[in-house]
Amino acid sequence: MNLQVNSSVHPYSIIIEPGSRKQLYEYIIEQTKKHPTSFLVITDDCVADLYLEEVLNSFPNHIRVETSIVPHGEKAKSFQQYENLLTAALQFKLDRGAMIIALGGGVVGDLAGFVAATYMRGIPFVQVPTTLLAHDSSVGGKVGINHQLGKNMVGAFHQPSLVLYDPELLMTLPEHEWRSGFAEVIKHGFIADKEFLEWLRRNVTSFQHWDMNILSEMIYRSIAVKAKIVEEDEKEAGNRAFLNFGHTLGHAIEAELGYGEITHGEAVAIGMKFALAVSEKVFHVNLNYETYLKMLESLGYDLTIPDVNIHKLLDRMKVDKKSYNQSIRFVLLKEFGNPELIEITEEILLEELSMKKGG
Amino acid sequence: MNLQVNSSVHPYSIIIEPGSRKQLYEYIIEQTKKHPTSFLVITDDCVADLYLEEVLNSFPNHIRVETSIVPHGEKAKSFQQYENLLTAALQFKLDRGAMIIALGGGVVGDLAGFVAATYMRGIPFVQVPTTLLAHDSSVGGKVGINHQLGKNMVGAFHQPSLVLYDPELLMTLPEHEWRSGFAEVIKHGFIADKEFLEWLRRNVTSFQHWDMNILSEMIYRSIAVKAKIVEEDEKEAGNRAFLNFGHTLGHAIEAELGYGEITHGEAVAIGMKFALAVSEKVFHVNLNYETYLKMLESLGYDLTIPDVNIHKLLDRMKVDKKSYNQSIRFVLLKEFGNPELIEITEEILLEELSMKKGG
Ligand SMILES: NC(=O)c1ccc[n+]([C@@H]2O[C@H](COP(=O)([O-])OP(=O)(O)OC[C@H]3O[C@@H](n4cnc5c(N)ncnc54)[C@H](O)[C@@H]3O)[C@@H](O)[C@H]2O)c1
Ligand SMILES: NC(=O)c1ccc[n+]([C@@H]2O[C@H](COP(=O)([O-])OP(=O)(O)OC[C@H]3O[C@@H](n4cnc5c(N)ncnc54)[C@H](O)[C@@H]3O)[C@@H](O)[C@H]2O)c1
Ligand SMILES: [Zn+2]
Ligand SMILES: [Zn+2]
Repeated sequence: MNLQVNSSVHPYSIIIEPGSRKQLYEYIIEQTKKHPTSFLVITDDCVADLYLEEVLNSFPNHIRVETSIVPHGEKAKSFQQYENLLTAALQFKLDRGAMIIALGGGVVGDLAGFVAATYMRGIPFVQVPTTLLAHDSSVGGKVGINHQLGKNMVGAFHQPSLVLYDPELLMTLPEHEWRSGFAEVIKHGFIADKEFLEWLRRNVTSFQHWDMNILSEMIYRSIAVKAKIVEEDEKEAGNRAFLNFGHTLGHAIEAELGYGEITHGEAVAIGMKFALAVSEKVFHVNLNYETYLKMLESLGYDLTIPDVNIHKLLDRMKVDKKSYNQSIRFVLLKEFGNPELIEITEEILLEELSMKKGG
Repeated sequence: MNLQVNSSVHPYSIIIEPGSRKQLYEYIIEQTKKHPTSFLVITDDCVADLYLEEVLNSFPNHIRVETSIVPHGEKAKSFQQYENLLTAALQFKLDRGAMIIALGGGVVGDLAGFVAATYMRGIPFVQVPTTLLAHDSSVGGKVGINHQLGKNMVGAFHQPSLVLYDPELLMTLPEHEWRSGFAEVIKHGFIADKEFLEWLRRNVTSFQHWDMNILSEMIYRSIAVKAKIVEEDEKEAGNRAFLNFGHTLGHAIEAELGYGEITHGEAVAIGMKFALAVSEKVFHVNLNYETYLKMLESLGYDLTIPDVNIHKLLDRMKVDKKSYNQSIRFVLLKEFGNPELIEITEEILLEELSMKKGG
């Protein structure tokens, strides 16, 4: 399956194809029409153990391919790793004709993408996502690292030259990583594609047993939503904010619990439940979303707001990167597929938080 | 005087106006049509002592303006300073509506511009150049820092929202900084504007006594050359390479001597003399450039290739960032205003270097 994204810089393809990791080199040449002077594969230690060899074997012998491995997990999105990777690129004498390959989840994609964005003021890179969540992070060109004072505070927009998605890679993913990624999938249904939402309810009943066709179609349809939105609003001046559905509270929960305590998507799922309730209240509508909450719960999500101080959650929501001048801007739904970005008063949020907490 | 640059991201103005530093705030509002939520002025300690107060006084009291001061000189273009400035921006709680002001020479412009390019994936910034060289560096959107393994190896393209040039600021510039900047001025004459070259020879006879009108016109005409080239080739895929005239050998000399031993422009001037000689040889033309060399010498330039190993110079030229696959690509002139980028054999360069060295 094949999708095209028309970014302002260059169009690029998204290929979703089981087994494609074994032909990475061919796909790159065919799809990007580039002939890089050399390659640098950036990956994390877990992914390297599982898939690095297969990927490297796809390159002919006469092609120069270097590898840099970072530790797995969010902590790799640091200044230190960023600087180390730039040093490695220089030591490998990569020139401007070189290409970076991000083989991993969202962490590797963001980090390697930022290296590509800033090495010699930008060289091409290819995303090879290995988590379900990375179907989201690998599209749209947002790359970057964390700062002690905030997540994703340093970064750039740098569009990949190709996204090559091999769904077979996901077969080694732990359960909670499925939940993390699937929250973004269902989010895309909520904000843009009601039919897809229904399709998900009918077709995804477990993360253990996948039909490769179903999995590929799910990734394809979910990416299609994201691709359309980022195409229309590349630099996040307008509608791209809709992708933040469930994220305002989600981010606050992640930060308040401490990163790593709960996956990103699990926190977003709680945030979506909350945003749905607020939507009904603010727009005086009945969304009938309970069936989707049940679905999430049967997939192992815990949708209860964790036991943290709600005033602290509120404070964190106020300093969200998406906010200007400390007002709280929320993505709400008028109906499925019809999102709106509006300013919410502290009172409404506080009331709703008190009601929902622990319940 | 006023110039417009049509970058692919947004058009921006270049204003050249004596005394304008005292109305910086007004110029920003008028020219950018932005109303930033707050400002961060980044400058170096020398420039701060001389001009920071005047600049800050241009802001009304109710506007929030923060300041970060870095040490002066090339060493400020480091990872450490970059990270420190991002930390400062976060501590000041700058949001996406904030604006960065680069008040200084090329070092401050490159460093502050890179902070602006990557803080929350990019916020607007304004260039307020305070050196003659920065008439060059402040236009075109190249921003970045150095790496131990190479100058300007890490960076981005990030276009300023405004360049505000107050030529009065240059009155405190030491002689060697005038020479550094003026080399880029005459370079613009060589590669694109023969008449300007003649105008310079007639009007610039000393760096000590300036008529403000002549100085402003010189800056204007020199920027106009740069602006036109970067407009046509924003990302350095083609003609922008012409700006590298004199720089291949110039960079090699700077690096071989050790940065700081000689200013950038003084090294470039030597490189231009060399490139002119090679041009005559390769194209079998007579450029009659001696009159301009005399002019440079009367302005205090030493155009002799320093006493360093010419094989080392050659090696450095091979790894220049502009080169692909280690070939040596040189900007040469067929005539004044008619540059060409061509691959040169090692033999020709070595022969010419041996002849010119020390002579
Ligand atoms: N750029 C964007 O637009 C965007 C969007 C959303 C999220 N993100 C970022 O994405 C990151 C989260 O991504 P993630 O959830 O993929 O995290 P991740 O990259 O840390 O991957 C999660 C874990 O799964 C392991 N793993 C990866 N692939 C595997 C596989 N095939 N089999 C077994 N284990 C595997 C990894 O080693 C890691 O330990 C966050 O840093 C977030 O900020 C970015
Ligand atoms: N981005 C680009 O396109 C581009 C182009 C050319 C050069 N550059 C970069 O520019 C840098 C060199 O710029 P520069 O020569 O302006 O160096 P600089 O910024 O270090 O300034 C030179 C010295 O002059 C001092 N100074 C600045 N303004 C002054 C004033 N008005 N009065 C008295 N002293 C003053 C500074 O404190 C410094 O010590 C290099 O790092 C180079 O890589 C960038
Ligand atoms: Zn998310
Ligand atoms: Zn230069």
